[in-house]
Amino acid sequence: MTIGVVGAGQLGRMLALAGYPLGQDFLFLDRSPAAPAGQIAPLLCGEFTDTALLGELAERTEVVTFDWENISVAALRALGQRRICPPVRALATAQDRVSEKRLFERLRIPTTRWRAVDSRAELAHALRAIGLPGVLKTRRMGYDGKGQAVLHSAQDAERAWERLGQAPLIYEEYVPFDFEVSIIGARNRQGEAVIYPLNHNVHARGILRLTRAPLASPRLQRYAARYLRAVLTHFRYVGVLTIEFFVRRGRLIANEMAPRVHNSGHWTIEGAVTSQFENHLRAILGLPLGSARARGHCAMINLIGRLPPRRRLLAHPDLHFHDYGKAARPGRKLGHCTLVERTARRCDARVRRLLAELAPEIRIP
Amino acid sequence: MTIGVVGAGQLGRMLALAGYPLGQDFLFLDRSPAAPAGQIAPLLCGEFTDTALLGELAERTEVVTFDWENISVAALRALGQRRICPPVRALATAQDRVSEKRLFERLRIPTTRWRAVDSRAELAHALRAIGLPGVLKTRRMGYDGKGQAVLHSAQDAERAWERLGQAPLIYEEYVPFDFEVSIIGARNRQGEAVIYPLNHNVHARGILRLTRAPLASPRLQRYAARYLRAVLTHFRYVGVLTIEFFVRRGRLIANEMAPRVHNSGHWTIEGAVTSQFENHLRAILGLPLGSARARGHCAMINLIGRLPPRRRLLAHPDLHFHDYGKAARPGRKLGHCTLVERTARRCDARVRRLLAELAPEIRIP
Repeated sequence: MTIGVVGAGQLGRMLALAGYPLGQDFLFLDRSPAAPAGQIAPLLCGEFTDTALLGELAERTEVVTFDWENISVAALRALGQRRICPPVRALATAQDRVSEKRLFERLRIPTTRWRAVDSRAELAHALRAIGLPGVLKTRRMGYDGKGQAVLHSAQDAERAWERLGQAPLIYEEYVPFDFEVSIIGARNRQGEAVIYPLNHNVHARGILRLTRAPLASPRLQRYAARYLRAVLTHFRYVGVLTIEFFVRRGRLIANEMAPRVHNSGHWTIEGAVTSQFENHLRAILGLPLGSARARGHCAMINLIGRLPPRRRLLAHPDLHFHDYGKAARPGRKLGHCTLVERTARRCDARVRRLLAELAPEIRIP
Repeated sequence: MTIGVVGAGQLGRMLALAGYPLGQDFLFLDRSPAAPAGQIAPLLCGEFTDTALLGELAERTEVVTFDWENISVAALRALGQRRICPPVRALATAQDRVSEKRLFERLRIPTTRWRAVDSRAELAHALRAIGLPGVLKTRRMGYDGKGQAVLHSAQDAERAWERLGQAPLIYEEYVPFDFEVSIIGARNRQGEAVIYPLNHNVHARGILRLTRAPLASPRLQRYAARYLRAVLTHFRYVGVLTIEFFVRRGRLIANEMAPRVHNSGHWTIEGAVTSQFENHLRAILGLPLGSARARGHCAMINLIGRLPPRRRLLAHPDLHFHDYGKAARPGRKLGHCTLVERTARRCDARVRRLLAELAPEIRIP
């Protein structure tokens, strides 16, 4: 079977690498002829809004999925009744922070206080209602911290409005969180679901730098899994879904969801019985899902901006290295590495040493 | 870097799947346009003896390796000083059962008694010297039990001579072995080596059907590793090397070697910290080798002739399935599946159940 994928980034690349052993073929669509997945699978090159190209992708494949959220829902919908997974409704909700908040509220998933902001007057109103500090964000097309501003003062608000005010915005309370987690799960066409253990994430400048899993909190795991299942069921979802949470005083506060495989789940390639990529494919192909059990205590470190020398990385004899085949550029995710250890203590000790070598700016408690 | 691979079978395919995460590119050469690795990487299509095509492969790649032994040593040598790994000398030795026996004897690796047979007179002489039963084999181009005959009587010998006598032959004693094992290791350009735990193999009709690893015998492990290291050192070997042994009364008897990744090492993809495929690539790229430690008690079952329905296979929630993308044909290796369990007992119990479902003709003790 041939799987069409809109977006050919590293997520798409890892999908193809998980799909080849299952005997699947792939066809990607991306703007860049040098896209990571295009190096290992056939690629249609053009805009994500190009309906002719999307039509070709759909024609030549049995099922269409995506590795990137900022694609046109209208263009996908124009493909009609074709098999698109995850459901386009879920993508549409995730693309709009206001719809996302409304969904969380409807499903009784705790989230931040928020106000939609479409004018200076609404911004002033939101600032009064929610107070400072807060975060002003574009409703759409944000990722890796792009299109956001933290507001500590009226002056900040003014500057942020100048920068972002041309797009529809949302103002959210600033959560002084204790730490961040995410949960990833898959649901297949038959309605079966599997949920991975909680990821404990460390971001810097809006970019994920480190994930450790499983987080040892059965209580948080239970709540997060319940919330994830609520969203999966709501959409009759098919594929992998991720929700990111802040944790404050032992409570989960949903930040956002991603209707796709997620950077915080890269450790599942070596660290879980079945990777998030394989389970996404199993789900959309209508196959039984694989176990989401962790095979040890895992850590994933993102390699940003430039890759360390391969020889130095691989000198760590049980480190798993993933090179996305991308050109170096400041702030760009170029690869990641993963550790799987028998104990959390040993994993943490190794993470500390690796961070000192690879990303000394990242400190972990 | 681009790696050239002569042969684009399932071994080549799994090499590419291990190399993509390391950021490597591949170019394959194979006779068949439908070869498994050609479905996931660029393929030059032609004869393995085509020196122009081999030249093109070498020109377009930084290092050349092979996933198949029955290729022309002369054609590879004609490429001159280009980087070919493993060394062509090792390939030449492995291609000729007589050279292989001589090497084992020279390195004091116990092997079967044998005689080269190039005429009826030599066959008669070999039968007298070694006795019956015995195995008459072509010296070259045998694999998966092809080009072999077990002789129990003078009549068998006559029939086998009629069938095989046009090629140079070898006559070996028949070893009534207790079981079969293989050992796999890698040596890199710097001379570092790693050795995987022993594989316990079950063949039927000359084809590997089941491997379980690690075999719990520190003594056999020690001997097998010593023998493997002797061959690695002898050739200043670079890449993965396999030796297959019979085990009789607790002693190892070398049967043959393969200068490549090996079917009995497929379990290392999920079952070892670093797979044999990744370590082969690390070795030939001059990178540090990864740990060859097993991550549990593993079993690999070959899927021969036709694949079971994917849905049924994947209903086992922690089974790993590998589809080579080959057309079904009796006796053909089409895929394999792997289990990784915490205890040998649990692994064996699951293997029994899986064999009953997938290959009821295979019985294990």
